[in-house]
Amino acid sequence: MSRKKTPYKTYLAEEEVPRAWYNVRADMKTDHAPILHPGTLEPVTVADMQPIFCTELAKQELNVTDRFIEIPEQVRDFYLMYRPAPLVRAYYLEKLLDTPARIYYKYEGNNTSGSHKLNSAIAQAYYAKDQGLTGLTTETGAGQWGTAMSMACAYFDLDLKVYMVKVSFEQKPYRKTVMQTYGAEIIASPSDTTEVGRRLREQFPDSNGSLGTAISEAVEVAVSTEGCRYVLGSVLNQVLIHQSVIGLEAKAALEKLDEYPDIVIGCAGGGSNLGGLMAPFMADRLAGRQAPRFIAVEPASCPSLTRGRFAYDFCDTGQVTPLAKMYTLGNGFIPSANHAGGLRYHGMSPILSQLYHDGFLDEARSVEQSAVFEAAVRFARSEGTLPAPESAHAIRVAIDEALKCKESGEEKVILFGCTGNGYFDLMAYQQYNDGTMVDAIPTDTDLERGFKTIPSLAGIS
Amino acid sequence: MSRKKTPYKTYLAEEEVPRAWYNVRADMKTDHAPILHPGTLEPVTVADMQPIFCTELAKQELNVTDRFIEIPEQVRDFYLMYRPAPLVRAYYLEKLLDTPARIYYKYEGNNTSGSHKLNSAIAQAYYAKDQGLTGLTTETGAGQWGTAMSMACAYFDLDLKVYMVKVSFEQKPYRKTVMQTYGAEIIASPSDTTEVGRRLREQFPDSNGSLGTAISEAVEVAVSTEGCRYVLGSVLNQVLIHQSVIGLEAKAALEKLDEYPDIVIGCAGGGSNLGGLMAPFMADRLAGRQAPRFIAVEPASCPSLTRGRFAYDFCDTGQVTPLAKMYTLGNGFIPSANHAGGLRYHGMSPILSQLYHDGFLDEARSVEQSAVFEAAVRFARSEGTLPAPESAHAIRVAIDEALKCKESGEEKVILFGCTGNGYFDLMAYQQYNDGTMVDAIPTDTDLERGFKTIPSLAGIS
Repeated sequence: MSRKKTPYKTYLAEEEVPRAWYNVRADMKTDHAPILHPGTLEPVTVADMQPIFCTELAKQELNVTDRFIEIPEQVRDFYLMYRPAPLVRAYYLEKLLDTPARIYYKYEGNNTSGSHKLNSAIAQAYYAKDQGLTGLTTETGAGQWGTAMSMACAYFDLDLKVYMVKVSFEQKPYRKTVMQTYGAEIIASPSDTTEVGRRLREQFPDSNGSLGTAISEAVEVAVSTEGCRYVLGSVLNQVLIHQSVIGLEAKAALEKLDEYPDIVIGCAGGGSNLGGLMAPFMADRLAGRQAPRFIAVEPASCPSLTRGRFAYDFCDTGQVTPLAKMYTLGNGFIPSANHAGGLRYHGMSPILSQLYHDGFLDEARSVEQSAVFEAAVRFARSEGTLPAPESAHAIRVAIDEALKCKESGEEKVILFGCTGNGYFDLMAYQQYNDGTMVDAIPTDTDLERGFKTIPSLAGIS
Repeated sequence: MSRKKTPYKTYLAEEEVPRAWYNVRADMKTDHAPILHPGTLEPVTVADMQPIFCTELAKQELNVTDRFIEIPEQVRDFYLMYRPAPLVRAYYLEKLLDTPARIYYKYEGNNTSGSHKLNSAIAQAYYAKDQGLTGLTTETGAGQWGTAMSMACAYFDLDLKVYMVKVSFEQKPYRKTVMQTYGAEIIASPSDTTEVGRRLREQFPDSNGSLGTAISEAVEVAVSTEGCRYVLGSVLNQVLIHQSVIGLEAKAALEKLDEYPDIVIGCAGGGSNLGGLMAPFMADRLAGRQAPRFIAVEPASCPSLTRGRFAYDFCDTGQVTPLAKMYTLGNGFIPSANHAGGLRYHGMSPILSQLYHDGFLDEARSVEQSAVFEAAVRFARSEGTLPAPESAHAIRVAIDEALKCKESGEEKVILFGCTGNGYFDLMAYQQYNDGTMVDAIPTDTDLERGFKTIPSLAGIS
């Protein structure tokens, strides 16, 4: 088969950009366990969620019946500013690896937020505006979600307060500038602007922050501010629904090329990227049709799928959010240093967790960051694009799988998600270049300490 | 006319990406004055240029006859990694301005170098490799050209030494990281690694550096190193030839939309972007066909077209390069602080200078940086994309022209070049956000001081 059979980049036409998101939950054999109210420990209702979330988003969160949800016209209009995103054939990486595999990646970095996060940010901002709200709060880890929300809120003229994980706030000052340029207010978390932040600062004065803590702070402000709600960039079902646009576009583009993946690979922090990328292919699996092997890739420093427990846990460190049954390291788990800030979350999307538990998400693999950056640099030098460290987790495994094909001679079709660019991760690249990057993997003792904060295991619920 | 007549983004198919560059010089009514050898003051020959430039590039530099020059297959292969670049209809900017104008921009920021510079970098690296060279030297201002050359040299496995203007080196440490990630060596200019650098550091210990100085250093190293040549990212005819791919793609995309621009706007530092964007439209003008009005936009802090002299001058501050007849502020001109590092050059492409002198390039306009950033933020918030400050010069004038259309009711078609993204210019955005940005415009005395360094005016040549 000729290497040049398919184009370098495949763009759908604008009219082919999806008009509806796909809700994989409606097709799941076993629904994930219900989300529980933290006070009553009863399954949450839309009414329970309304003080925190926009009403329409709360409905999406609980929607287990609609396979497709129409993309509002104003959201689709915004999508067309940066979508369709290209499906790229990694010819130069294939050549470098001398592999018979055909490697494709869906590239989501061609927008100013620098990642796929914008796909859900604009949807969430739209529903807030449509409901007549005036402001939103959120958290951000690596800064990609905060930037995406800043752009979305600028577009719909909404106020935005972003709690940014302290380590990222300090390592990525320019992320802050981008968000401010789009009109958002940025606060390093843990902060002294919330009760939960003050409490955590007292308990852990040296804390670098975590997504879990930043979530607690953002939620606290949202529920105590008039006309304000909270938005989250991953983990939630609603986010997976919005991110299905990645997979829907990728699948449609591959169909144009008469290709179907044998393997689908995505990095997994909270699960939004992998969940979105794999959704329409998972539909094939769930319907008993031909389907790819699915691989989730997570950092060895924060290994929720590979070393976590499948149990009910709080979604945040401050224990103010509902409880979800998911693979978790414990809401009190403190991830060791890793530059992929977007993958530092203690839990995993309930949908992905259930699919993994049931064997539909075939495999989770954890990788160390030095191996990830080695892959990132190979990718950058061959394919041109400097990837985000998060994306490079998927690249690492894509390379490993392509090298297996080289050994076996198999012409497998590998699809991975390249979630974003690495423009704001250059401190990490600098450390890699300087040879000062270290791999920090939690010990069993570290993990046990985290597991103790899982209420269902500790007998709290 | 319906606003939604045309798509948001128009991509050519890969087979429509140009197979030949266009050399506008072959169509000019009056050729630019010959480039002079700095020693003999005779017109330079290919033989004269060979110690500095790759032979094929030296030939392109002097090529006044071939209207089209074939793009080598390996260069076109690389182009397909990030091209075609989209032609974007600025619907949201139009809406914000409430203008009847139809605004299009050719966006060149969707590659890791972040700008159009890669179009020439890969061509220059190719010819170096093809000639059997092992290394290249260059200078970089804002860092875009250096990044582009780093990517190109990584691709063709060539050594690269980059002299980076000191002020950019300090303001943009992460640019350095990107270049190093692609394997380049970066040196702040003026440096103590060259004779000219040492001399200038002695004369001007507080110098922030300039493109002119960095050029001198890079040339000195190239001519004194075995298997090494010098490459330049703007000003030169060869660069304008390569950058014609921007205009050729833009014109072809507009043709698909049945559109033809009334106005073409580009920022102009050394002239590579504007020269490339306008080239095929200038062909129409030079052939007497319908043609747009051309506007060059430069910073008020470095106003070579609007306040410079049309005279023979050195291309570098160290006075080691050939002399070109061009609009110049004097090779010794020190531009006042401006964040558009790519527009801090004392001279202007000889081709653009001649076209401007002859009235084919209709107008040059200088703009102050606070007005530029005001336009940049409006553009970012409406169109999503955070533009490079250089690009924002063109955005400023595009907005001004669109607002004129609002007053007059004219449905003009405006095309501008959005040369890149602003990811590495966030210190400047931060200053703008903080309200600490100042406009620094050279006084007549400053200009006179610069003019005194123009040898043809000082009676040297």
